[in-house]
Amino acid sequence: MISRILNAELPEHIGREIKIAGWIHRQREMKSLTFTIIRDRSGLAQVVVPASTANISYGEETVVEVRGRVIANAQAPGGVEIVEPVFTLLSKATTAPPFDLYRPVVGATLPTILDNASVALRHPKLRARFEVSAASVAGFRSTLDSMGFVETHTPKIVGTATESGANVFGIDYFGQRAYLAQSPQFYKQALVGVFERVYEVGPVFRAEPHDTTRHLAQYTSLDAEFGFIEDHHDVMDLLREVLAGMLSEVSQRASQALNLLEARLPLIPKEIPELHLTEAQELIAQNTDEDPRGEPDLAPAHERWLSEWALREHDSDFLFVTGYPMVKRPFYTHADPARPAYSNSFDLLFRGVELVTGGQRLHKHDDYLAALAEQGQDPEPLRDYLRTFAHGMPPHGGFAIGLERWTARLLDVANIRETTLFPRDLNRLTP
Amino acid sequence: MISRILNAELPEHIGREIKIAGWIHRQREMKSLTFTIIRDRSGLAQVVVPASTANISYGEETVVEVRGRVIANAQAPGGVEIVEPVFTLLSKATTAPPFDLYRPVVGATLPTILDNASVALRHPKLRARFEVSAASVAGFRSTLDSMGFVETHTPKIVGTATESGANVFGIDYFGQRAYLAQSPQFYKQALVGVFERVYEVGPVFRAEPHDTTRHLAQYTSLDAEFGFIEDHHDVMDLLREVLAGMLSEVSQRASQALNLLEARLPLIPKEIPELHLTEAQELIAQNTDEDPRGEPDLAPAHERWLSEWALREHDSDFLFVTGYPMVKRPFYTHADPARPAYSNSFDLLFRGVELVTGGQRLHKHDDYLAALAEQGQDPEPLRDYLRTFAHGMPPHGGFAIGLERWTARLLDVANIRETTLFPRDLNRLTP
Repeated sequence: MISRILNAELPEHIGREIKIAGWIHRQREMKSLTFTIIRDRSGLAQVVVPASTANISYGEETVVEVRGRVIANAQAPGGVEIVEPVFTLLSKATTAPPFDLYRPVVGATLPTILDNASVALRHPKLRARFEVSAASVAGFRSTLDSMGFVETHTPKIVGTATESGANVFGIDYFGQRAYLAQSPQFYKQALVGVFERVYEVGPVFRAEPHDTTRHLAQYTSLDAEFGFIEDHHDVMDLLREVLAGMLSEVSQRASQALNLLEARLPLIPKEIPELHLTEAQELIAQNTDEDPRGEPDLAPAHERWLSEWALREHDSDFLFVTGYPMVKRPFYTHADPARPAYSNSFDLLFRGVELVTGGQRLHKHDDYLAALAEQGQDPEPLRDYLRTFAHGMPPHGGFAIGLERWTARLLDVANIRETTLFPRDLNRLTP
Repeated sequence: MISRILNAELPEHIGREIKIAGWIHRQREMKSLTFTIIRDRSGLAQVVVPASTANISYGEETVVEVRGRVIANAQAPGGVEIVEPVFTLLSKATTAPPFDLYRPVVGATLPTILDNASVALRHPKLRARFEVSAASVAGFRSTLDSMGFVETHTPKIVGTATESGANVFGIDYFGQRAYLAQSPQFYKQALVGVFERVYEVGPVFRAEPHDTTRHLAQYTSLDAEFGFIEDHHDVMDLLREVLAGMLSEVSQRASQALNLLEARLPLIPKEIPELHLTEAQELIAQNTDEDPRGEPDLAPAHERWLSEWALREHDSDFLFVTGYPMVKRPFYTHADPARPAYSNSFDLLFRGVELVTGGQRLHKHDDYLAALAEQGQDPEPLRDYLRTFAHGMPPHGGFAIGLERWTARLLDVANIRETTLFPRDLNRLTP
């Protein structure tokens, strides 16, 4: 019995009898023969089926094994093809795909793709996005592993809404009211007290009431948090290394996917340019018709303008904007000691959109109590979280990268649903 | 300015001025001096504080930086200590830990540990468990990555209860009824159609109404699924490689934790012994006072007996039990073609308990419809899942390892809550 080889391995087997297996991707009937294209996880293979052979009338996506002989053919995809084939049926497709999976361009609307995800994702260009996504996560982890970070798994069911009562999903938890965690923020901070350096890759949940191209009800958050920092610049330095590690892993592990998608990997300089929010606003005021000075945040159009500026002036697809006003940041944010109305926090803009939020957190118990009092928040629901700081915590900070948003920007895909296998939103709970 | 070094690096710096940082783990006052032990992520360091020094009266868990000179001292932990220290306070502990973190044995009950998790986990022996857990997950991934598996992230909010309506948490999803996913089973199968080989590490949710040492409301499931298999033995072979990879990564990455915990890594033979359920029952009937022949499942005591048998007879801490009756397995289970009342599925017993469930799944659309009809289940709620099989699916199978249960058995810990950072159960929704 001969073992299956992958389609990508065929060129190493010219002249030999082999066995491949996969999906019937396409059948092109000619006068005297049919070209049957078989798709497996490694790519495509052409099988030459003479008209005299008992007709293989299986529909597209039928799963088969093919035994045959490999010959060189410069015209065939990959430079080889299989002749004298013998087919074995593994599983018959009983329904045609909702659109042609073999066409180079996906000929279906987004709702059709999403409604039929399990078959639509078989299109090589749709699948390729998730190979890039998986490689990105691998790079996130390997970079942090090499720096002594520990991977954690924290509760997704919580007794108190993490950051605010809005946009949170309620659960019936054995008769009690509970919520789906909006982020691992509180846990990753607590775990800095245990491991110093932690990361988590996991789902977060937002009951986002708006139907936009940038928001999902569940997404994958790449969270990191670490202690013994000076300020948020240490966090930004770490983030730069992590992004470089993600890009490096993508170019190594997912080069075939990148080629197929004709993706341009971003430019990431040794030092990502940084603007304080006030500097960014000054720049916009001086160079455009608008004057955002004094605003507490950046408008999407200004984020796009600043990204273009960073690419033009600094050859960078990334830009840090720091120093957002304290009033716009969560209570655990550390103020800038020199200008206490501004925070030691940052957003990272990537090709026109905010990709990462991060910064230095408060680490002293008294500072937490003062910050909550300042915002008029009751400390009681945060009792367990606050206890961590009563037991001694180092200066620390961290960030969170939204995986689907990262992949969308990396591959220049318009809607975040296109970089999510099975998205969940206001209107979508299936498949 | 000198940069911080880790405690574990001190022996390389004998004679030099250095800076360390960490938590005050313990202070031992002697007549003319105090030994202050500083804990960081790498271990402990002894600082010699002469009585003449301004007294460092910070409580345990206070976070400090210490500058000083490293000298050799064979009596000190690690063979070195720091003299002429200058302390800088980073953050004062305002509350004493709920039990002494410096004692070699944890002197607290499980509820005290769990109620105070964020400080309790700082105990080196409690923390070490999670270093083993993180290394295990790294080994799971690296083994599968090397075999061409793709990592996926699937919905945790689903419209239909995955496997049964029982033990499922309900959510209010924008006014609709939804559920927390009990497993990624349906998604990982669908994704075999896309990637052939997939894995996922993520939370799964069970509204487990029983308060046992083996069950949690949320746990971390290490799921793998792959196509083009002959039968469940291919899945068992893969699982053996994955477990060996996990153990290898644990011994490499977490050797310090293993030493601290005095853990004995299990014996995993090249081929894990296998018994068909009927053979296992025969063996028990012949060698004990009990006769389980004809039972559809194994009792916990019989699982323990069989594990001991495998260790005694085959030098293996692992044992496969195959061929559970179809009536006890979910509808997607593939039958044994030779004995259709039995399934092509398995449980893996590890040191007396069931650690992994897996097997071959159905892959033909008609077989799904027949299996559901047989069980009297309405196919309509499974419409999206079933559609995958109408589009051609290869013979496939997979398995799921419960991470917390794995770590508990690996480290011989009695309660699964002790290998979960912040457990969730019938009675526990905090911290």
